[in-house]
Amino acid sequence: MADIILVVNAGSSSIKFCGFDAAGAEPRLLLKGQVEGLFTEPHFKVANAAGDRSEENRWPSGTEIGHAGAIRYIADFLRDHREGHSLVAVGHRVVHGGLEFGAPTVVDHAVLERLGRLVPLAPLHQPHNLAPIRVLLEARPDVPQVACFDTAFHRSQPEAAQAFALPQEITAPGVRRYGFHGLSYEYIASVLPRLAPEAAAGRTVVAHLGNGASMCALKGGRSMASTMGFTAVDGLPMGTRCGSLDPGVILYLIDELGMNARTVEDLIYKRSGLLGVSGLSSDMRVLLQSDDVRARFAVELFIYRIGRELGSLAAALEGLDALVFTGGIGEHATLIRDRVCRQAAWLGIELDTAANEVDGPRISTESSGVSAWVVPTNEELMIARHTFAVTSAGLA
Amino acid sequence: MADIILVVNAGSSSIKFCGFDAAGAEPRLLLKGQVEGLFTEPHFKVANAAGDRSEENRWPSGTEIGHAGAIRYIADFLRDHREGHSLVAVGHRVVHGGLEFGAPTVVDHAVLERLGRLVPLAPLHQPHNLAPIRVLLEARPDVPQVACFDTAFHRSQPEAAQAFALPQEITAPGVRRYGFHGLSYEYIASVLPRLAPEAAAGRTVVAHLGNGASMCALKGGRSMASTMGFTAVDGLPMGTRCGSLDPGVILYLIDELGMNARTVEDLIYKRSGLLGVSGLSSDMRVLLQSDDVRARFAVELFIYRIGRELGSLAAALEGLDALVFTGGIGEHATLIRDRVCRQAAWLGIELDTAANEVDGPRISTESSGVSAWVVPTNEELMIARHTFAVTSAGLA
Repeated sequence: MADIILVVNAGSSSIKFCGFDAAGAEPRLLLKGQVEGLFTEPHFKVANAAGDRSEENRWPSGTEIGHAGAIRYIADFLRDHREGHSLVAVGHRVVHGGLEFGAPTVVDHAVLERLGRLVPLAPLHQPHNLAPIRVLLEARPDVPQVACFDTAFHRSQPEAAQAFALPQEITAPGVRRYGFHGLSYEYIASVLPRLAPEAAAGRTVVAHLGNGASMCALKGGRSMASTMGFTAVDGLPMGTRCGSLDPGVILYLIDELGMNARTVEDLIYKRSGLLGVSGLSSDMRVLLQSDDVRARFAVELFIYRIGRELGSLAAALEGLDALVFTGGIGEHATLIRDRVCRQAAWLGIELDTAANEVDGPRISTESSGVSAWVVPTNEELMIARHTFAVTSAGLA
Repeated sequence: MADIILVVNAGSSSIKFCGFDAAGAEPRLLLKGQVEGLFTEPHFKVANAAGDRSEENRWPSGTEIGHAGAIRYIADFLRDHREGHSLVAVGHRVVHGGLEFGAPTVVDHAVLERLGRLVPLAPLHQPHNLAPIRVLLEARPDVPQVACFDTAFHRSQPEAAQAFALPQEITAPGVRRYGFHGLSYEYIASVLPRLAPEAAAGRTVVAHLGNGASMCALKGGRSMASTMGFTAVDGLPMGTRCGSLDPGVILYLIDELGMNARTVEDLIYKRSGLLGVSGLSSDMRVLLQSDDVRARFAVELFIYRIGRELGSLAAALEGLDALVFTGGIGEHATLIRDRVCRQAAWLGIELDTAANEVDGPRISTESSGVSAWVVPTNEELMIARHTFAVTSAGLA
């Protein structure tokens, strides 16, 4: 009987999941699905790896199945519809591991309690990530669960890269630059040796450009610096998040515009970034097709800020051997990659326009001093690998 | 009868001033002084340019002469003690010119009122800068006064360098990256053509490192980007200011530590930076002589962040021809320059250790691809020049 590893990525109103066959050396994707509208109009959908066979279920509008109902439904679905397979482990994407969790960790009640203490560090994400773990600990105590953290990969950074210039009484309890998208960067770092062995052993900047966007400096495959900081709002402008912001602006918003912490939070997380600047959309595809002057400026600002952060991250690496694009925008937006690479000519990148048009994988010329790449990320596979490794190790 | 230009730099509790002889083509320093302790124990002190003749006056403890009393005292002193000279103009350092003032401006009551509207953009500095102007407009209406702005020099930056990724309703009224230390950068840009003509025509990063610290990217002598943003708290860590900070940290301080806008302001402006990280001192000289592990880390973090910003600013310039150090730390801290230059070897800087030991002016080797310099700044002279130019033009 084959073994299935379930990978769970729980957000505020949806749970995405994947099933991996854990029989081979590398987990193999079997199915992929999600439950959306957890508190409004739940909709379950699942498809096989090829995407050519799908099943779905809808609940009436107004139904609130929540995270608990959704994760139970997913687990039951796997049991009822995948005969011959056995659920051997569940891997969860957990946004915050704090200072304590620097590697994937099997979660029991004690660990769950410690992860709950990190909620103040990521109040918008951590509670949703933990909810399915709590349910499965009760409903399926026999199945080991593994928390895989978006922060863990960055704990290799030098102290100065993780520090804010704040007093110790603020920083010691955990106000530091954690960095996120760690599972994505770790996946890229894992495939880079095959694509670009010299760059993988050397200095690479990875640009994870999606609705959330950040960049990471890798030296020999280890994180040396990242644009995201204490929270996932720092660094690059994103779909709706502002990215780097003078802290004095927050004081101005409070003092002069009469805002409070909640309205500021709503502004910088949900109404800024590409959406805020363009006044049109958070979706880069929409902006790239628009002739509106503000939409153009939003794209311009996104590219400009990538260029500035690329310089800053190259400084963290004391030079650059390769640049990798990943994430929805990084993998598909030809124009963004084109502009970023041309802007980075001073670092030694020479764009291969034809290769860029077909999404690479290598999009720099043969003679380019610094190579540039498009590499689709696979955070789910990274979680499946970790879950397999940690639980195999635990059982061995 | 020779003409004197008075240059005034008014802070929260002191007024610094210089007198310049405006007879020649370039203003020539005659005297330099200050009134300290405006609200506690006022102390007036003035010396000639050579610093070998000084006069002073002390008021009893508890005396509050304020900005009004101090500026009147200075003006009267000049009248009574510099016979044969006539006060022809007063130049004021004004921190904020907002969007409206992109060049030095003669201040009348209407302009003063418009400058007052910018107080919300710099509540800790602007009121003190304006106080002496208000007094002299009444007391000496015959003497033209010129406001010289720390922000004006940066208005040449591309839009993307000045923008935050916030909605237009927030940015349009003036929430943008202004940049500061503009009079210092403008002075450096004015002397650079003599020192390093090619770099002056090309791409230079200037590091103004003092108790306040920022960096500026110059292309052909014009500002293209700066590390300070909307306020003077952004960018590099400083004596007591935190520099760049994830805006999410401010929300955390409010939500989790129960702070309010005033305690956050106090924290990020007065208790952070070198002082906060070291727990020892805001003075780089003290930290450099300390063996304390936290003092060492404060220095480490300062150097690291300069390196990251240097990469980011080089990206704004798409390359680098020269690096210039100025400000108290930049002009005197050999070790800081040494470490910054070595860290920037990847950009093509090769340090000349011996030249660095004697404060330059050139501290890079002959063969260094990117040159490095120490250039003492002179913001007072820059204000005197502007004041002379603007009032001469006005009178001509």
